[in-house]
Amino acid sequence: MQLDAGWFTEVCEEGGSAFSLKIRRKLHEEQSEYQRIEIFETEKFGKLMTIDGFVMLTDFDSFLYHEMMSHPVLFTHPAPERVVIIGGGDCGTLHEVLKHPDVKLVLQVEIDERVTRIAEEYFPESCASNNDPRVEFLFADGIRWMQQAEAGTADVIIVDSTDPIGPAKGLFTEAFYRECHRVLGESGIVVQQSESPLFHMGIIKLLHRAMRIAGFQQTLSLHFPQVSYPAGWWSATMGGKNLDLQRYRERDISARSFPTRYYNLAIHRASMAMPEFFRHELESA
Amino acid sequence: MQLDAGWFTEVCEEGGSAFSLKIRRKLHEEQSEYQRIEIFETEKFGKLMTIDGFVMLTDFDSFLYHEMMSHPVLFTHPAPERVVIIGGGDCGTLHEVLKHPDVKLVLQVEIDERVTRIAEEYFPESCASNNDPRVEFLFADGIRWMQQAEAGTADVIIVDSTDPIGPAKGLFTEAFYRECHRVLGESGIVVQQSESPLFHMGIIKLLHRAMRIAGFQQTLSLHFPQVSYPAGWWSATMGGKNLDLQRYRERDISARSFPTRYYNLAIHRASMAMPEFFRHELESA
Repeated sequence: MQLDAGWFTEVCEEGGSAFSLKIRRKLHEEQSEYQRIEIFETEKFGKLMTIDGFVMLTDFDSFLYHEMMSHPVLFTHPAPERVVIIGGGDCGTLHEVLKHPDVKLVLQVEIDERVTRIAEEYFPESCASNNDPRVEFLFADGIRWMQQAEAGTADVIIVDSTDPIGPAKGLFTEAFYRECHRVLGESGIVVQQSESPLFHMGIIKLLHRAMRIAGFQQTLSLHFPQVSYPAGWWSATMGGKNLDLQRYRERDISARSFPTRYYNLAIHRASMAMPEFFRHELESA
Repeated sequence: MQLDAGWFTEVCEEGGSAFSLKIRRKLHEEQSEYQRIEIFETEKFGKLMTIDGFVMLTDFDSFLYHEMMSHPVLFTHPAPERVVIIGGGDCGTLHEVLKHPDVKLVLQVEIDERVTRIAEEYFPESCASNNDPRVEFLFADGIRWMQQAEAGTADVIIVDSTDPIGPAKGLFTEAFYRECHRVLGESGIVVQQSESPLFHMGIIKLLHRAMRIAGFQQTLSLHFPQVSYPAGWWSATMGGKNLDLQRYRERDISARSFPTRYYNLAIHRASMAMPEFFRHELESA
C-alpha cells in the first residue's frame, strides 16, 4: 500500500528503507540558525521532534536511547561527578544523568538553543530537570568548546549528537576524541551514539579506530532497540581512559534509587553482547 | 516526504507506524488456497516475501529471526533429536535446525505448500537443506496435526507462524499448548514467535499465561532485533516441560561446528535479559 499525506516518513538511504509515523497534526515548524525543527503530534508515538527531516525523539520510544546513553557509562565510572554532554539539546539524556546522586555538575554544550527551547515547550518530561542547580547550559559549538576546555575536568563525556553529516560530522573524528581524552580526568569515559549496527557498520568501525588512536585503551559498543531510528536497532560506543569498560558497579545498579523503563543490571550486561557479524567486522577492522 | 509507488509498505496499526522497503520490481504474485504470496526484489534487502501484505522474510535480515527461533531452544534441550516445526514454510528456521548434528528428524507441518515451493524458487539459501534425509515435509494444518500426534514423540516444537490473526490465531491458545505439552517427551521445549515487546505486550502476556496453564512450569521470552518486522525488535517465547530454560549447553554453543551470523553464547545469554518494562508487565500478568 502507499501511505497518504497523513504520515511523517524518514527515508534511510543506506538501508533502502523508510520508517513512518501516522500524524494527527503538525504542532510547530521553524528554521533555526542551524537546522529545520518540526514537532508533530502522532497517532501512537505521542509527540515527535524532527531535525532536517530526521527523527530526533518521540514520547513513545526515546526512553530506550536516553537511558542507554547515560546509565551504562555512569555506572561504569567509579565516581562520576563531572559530566559533559555534547549535543543532547532535547534534554532527555540530561534528565537521566541527573537521576544519579553522585553527579555534582553537568555541563551541556548544545549548538542550537532553539532545540532546547522547543523541547522545553513540547517535551516537558524530558526537560523536567532543566532547573536542577547542578546543570549548566552552554549554547555553543561542542567541538570548539572541547578544544578550549581545561584538561582533566570531566569524568564522563556523553556525545548525544545527530548523525555524522552536517554540523555533527566533526564529532566522529580522531581529533575530537583526542580532545575528549585530554578533558577527561585520570580515568574517564566518553560515549558516542553510533548509529545502527545493521546499516552503519562502517561508521562504528571508524569510531572504534578513532577512539583507540586518540588514546582510549578500550572501546566497546552497546546495542539496544530504538524503534524510530533506522533499522530499529541502535548502538552507542564507549571509549575508556584508564578504566575497564567490562566492569561496572553491579551492586549500585541493583540498588539504584530511581526508576528506569528499559535499563537494569541484566540489560547493562546484555547490551554489551557482540553478535557474530559485529565481532567479525570489528576484528577485521 | 511521501514515498512514491516504488516502495513496499507494511502498516502496523498497533504502532501507528509503517516500515517500507525500496523495490526494484515484483518477481512473483499469486493467491494460494490460503493467502496472497508476493515476491519482490528490493533495492538493499535482497529478495522480500510478503503474505497478505505482511513481511515474511528478506535476504538481508531474516538470519536474525531464523537463528533466534532455532539455536536457543536446541542448545537448551540436552539432546534434541526429534524436532517439529509448525509453520516455517520459508524453510529458513529449518535450515538452522539442520545445522545441529544431534538432530535426527525434523517434521515440518506447514499449512500452505505454495509458501515452501515459492521459497525454494526465490530463497535458495533458506531452502538449501530441504533435501536433507532427516527432513519430512507435511503440508497440513498444524493445529489439527498436533491434536492427532502421538504423545511423547518430540523433543523440541518450534512454532514459526504468521501473526495471531487469520489461520495462525489458534496457535496462540492454551488448547494448542496443551497438545504441544502432550506431544513433547519426558522433558522438552516449545518456542513460539511472539511479536514485538514494544507493540504487542498483551499478546506476550497471554502467551506466557497460556503456556503455564497448559502445563509448562517455566516460560521465558527472548528478544532480538528484526529490522523488517514492526518496531524492528522482536521476541520468541519458550515453554519448558521438566526443563530449566535458564540452563543451556554453554560448552556446546562455544564449540559449535557451524557458522552463525547473529547467535553465539553471549547473545544467547543477552537475549534473555528482561527490560524493566517487560519485567513489570509480566509480573502484573
